[in-house]
Amino acid sequence: MKEILGGVTAAKGFMAASCEANIKYKDRTDMAMVYSKTPCVCAGTFTTNVVKAACVKWDQKVVHSGEMMQAVVINSGIANAATGQKGWDACVATAKAVENTLKVPYTSVAVASTGVIGAQLPVEKLVKGVEMMSPVLKDSLEAGTEAAKAIMTTDTLHKELAVSFTVGNKEVTLGGMSKGSGMIHPNMCTMLAFLTTDLAIEKSLLQEAVSDVVGDTFNMITVDGDTSTNDTLLLMANGEAQNPVITEKNEDYNTFKEALYFVCETLAKKMAADGEGASKLFEAKVVNAKTKEDAKILSRAIVGSNLSKAAIFGCDANFGRFLCAMGYSGSLFDENDVEMFFKSENGTIQVFDKGTPLEFDEEKALKIMKAKSVCVFVDMHEGDASATAWGCDLTHEYVTINADYRS
Amino acid sequence: MKEILGGVTAAKGFMAASCEANIKYKDRTDMAMVYSKTPCVCAGTFTTNVVKAACVKWDQKVVHSGEMMQAVVINSGIANAATGQKGWDACVATAKAVENTLKVPYTSVAVASTGVIGAQLPVEKLVKGVEMMSPVLKDSLEAGTEAAKAIMTTDTLHKELAVSFTVGNKEVTLGGMSKGSGMIHPNMCTMLAFLTTDLAIEKSLLQEAVSDVVGDTFNMITVDGDTSTNDTLLLMANGEAQNPVITEKNEDYNTFKEALYFVCETLAKKMAADGEGASKLFEAKVVNAKTKEDAKILSRAIVGSNLSKAAIFGCDANFGRFLCAMGYSGSLFDENDVEMFFKSENGTIQVFDKGTPLEFDEEKALKIMKAKSVCVFVDMHEGDASATAWGCDLTHEYVTINADYRS
Repeated sequence: MKEILGGVTAAKGFMAASCEANIKYKDRTDMAMVYSKTPCVCAGTFTTNVVKAACVKWDQKVVHSGEMMQAVVINSGIANAATGQKGWDACVATAKAVENTLKVPYTSVAVASTGVIGAQLPVEKLVKGVEMMSPVLKDSLEAGTEAAKAIMTTDTLHKELAVSFTVGNKEVTLGGMSKGSGMIHPNMCTMLAFLTTDLAIEKSLLQEAVSDVVGDTFNMITVDGDTSTNDTLLLMANGEAQNPVITEKNEDYNTFKEALYFVCETLAKKMAADGEGASKLFEAKVVNAKTKEDAKILSRAIVGSNLSKAAIFGCDANFGRFLCAMGYSGSLFDENDVEMFFKSENGTIQVFDKGTPLEFDEEKALKIMKAKSVCVFVDMHEGDASATAWGCDLTHEYVTINADYRS
Repeated sequence: MKEILGGVTAAKGFMAASCEANIKYKDRTDMAMVYSKTPCVCAGTFTTNVVKAACVKWDQKVVHSGEMMQAVVINSGIANAATGQKGWDACVATAKAVENTLKVPYTSVAVASTGVIGAQLPVEKLVKGVEMMSPVLKDSLEAGTEAAKAIMTTDTLHKELAVSFTVGNKEVTLGGMSKGSGMIHPNMCTMLAFLTTDLAIEKSLLQEAVSDVVGDTFNMITVDGDTSTNDTLLLMANGEAQNPVITEKNEDYNTFKEALYFVCETLAKKMAADGEGASKLFEAKVVNAKTKEDAKILSRAIVGSNLSKAAIFGCDANFGRFLCAMGYSGSLFDENDVEMFFKSENGTIQVFDKGTPLEFDEEKALKIMKAKSVCVFVDMHEGDASATAWGCDLTHEYVTINADYRS
């Protein structure tokens, strides 16, 4: 497997476009479209929030119907959540607009939205956006990059990635884009992510691979503990690589899953590092826990704690806050088993040793904490399960962004 | 029942003292002591955090042993959590110092600490503090107020309260003090609270009343979602009011419980309003939920969400964030049943009506949100259970306080 340039248009047969639809933002693109020249098998994961955006309900129908998927239309600015019948009608109208312009069944068109909850989408603008984008769909890498930019909200960087790998002597490509930033908390894929591949694979195996990988990647990041109403990950596979169709969990399947893991983990980490107001990537790695579930709960509690996040912002090796977060996480453990370390490119320091706080060199600790990416490493000594979670620091900028009127 | 002046020394037979022990803070009092002239039955509730401070473990032993309690010694600055054997030894040494100075069994002395986790307490300073305070214990209201000040950390106001009521023709007094501010999240009583009463009551009934009331008061507040290692509430009852001892759940018991509820709710709201960096009290009232548990989960999710808290700070009637928090709370409901309102002393406005967002007067909404105390009122229309939770807004000041080195 190797990383290559590009995002959603890297794989064969995929095209993208974007436009200024003026839904909420002015003077920037706010709609994007991804289209496959041929129908795709598809898989998806969605928010577990009880209040689901209309587009999430629509996409669940498309993915679970067993139909093929051929296009996805995304807008930023308004989330189309808590919008009742009108919200649902907006999804149908958008999908039907694609049926009109591209002559694909509207039931093969996914839609996704991100932005303010509780506001109605301007349907005419969405339809006009589809009409503007359809004729200018391009398979260039640049078109993919522009799409990744159009779906941003408070993100400061667009996020895209592609890899290539070999399956049955054929070169296969997998690419994707995502957006995150606020209302980011692991429970189902977090935020919006769209992946495309030219791999040939059966739908049920595609879904299984996606569900497995999302659990260890997108579901392990948190920015603010708020699980959005709109979280959606979609993966479209059009088979254009012409590899022998993957129909069982053989070596080819594993090769693909490894590539998928890499793409999802990388996009997830990019999202965590670019969380609203974030100045650093904050990683928690828990090893030798009793069970995988314990390792996940503990690592997520560490990166999810406001006090931990504020300490990371302040470059303060205040390890008691991390241990406190582990303690209220819901996982049971004995603090007398626990060792804790801080790690970064600037070194490693142990701060807690099986129930006892260690005297440590504050200057060395400060140097370690000042890196752009800081890891809290915890050895539980209670089993052999591990997990890693990613988050970011809590900064003044986070408050500024979110106290801003109707951000 | 009527509110009267004072706090922990309002009830008959209780004395308090405080001193500058220089444990971590300089030029302020940082130790306090509450003492009853006669032995007390006692009740307590403690943090559910797996990582419990040494003093919590000590107090659990004192409360659950069935022994009487006669004194409690409190320090601010260092939490004595994650401190191993040394931490435990510090508790024993402090209790024994009280045995030396006041001639009460050291097993009747509770200890409590608040501050940095993972640092060791300077035992000599604690012992010296006990020696300084013991001879100057006073039953004046002022001594109680000074004790309430000594236990503050990042609190901006000291918190105390007292009420009197009649039981069996005798006037009974119940008073208390508490401290909160950071690492405040409902799961067991939150923070430190010390209540004193001259009521005569059986220990098991006292504990039952405390456990019941804490569930609807202290456990319904949140500042930052971090459940501390040190949360402790202690209630001492010395019987000096000479009412007929309460031995069953009769009218007297109910009178007392009502007073206890008032004191706990008032102290809890004071804590929420004075949360770290807070500029307002943020209340969520959920009515007509399926079960009491649902009502609690939903109201706590609303006041616990960072995005909700930031919206409250920004005076933004961004109701989608509140609905989103309800959606990921873990409680199941249908958004098509839900009505949501914003309320304050400046008026009431409905923003969501059974699945549909309402167009509302933004100017009126802004005026409502600008009050010092704002309530999100949610009618679930799914049952008849209600609950109220209290929190505060998320401000720049919160980040400043907690990014400060080893705060």
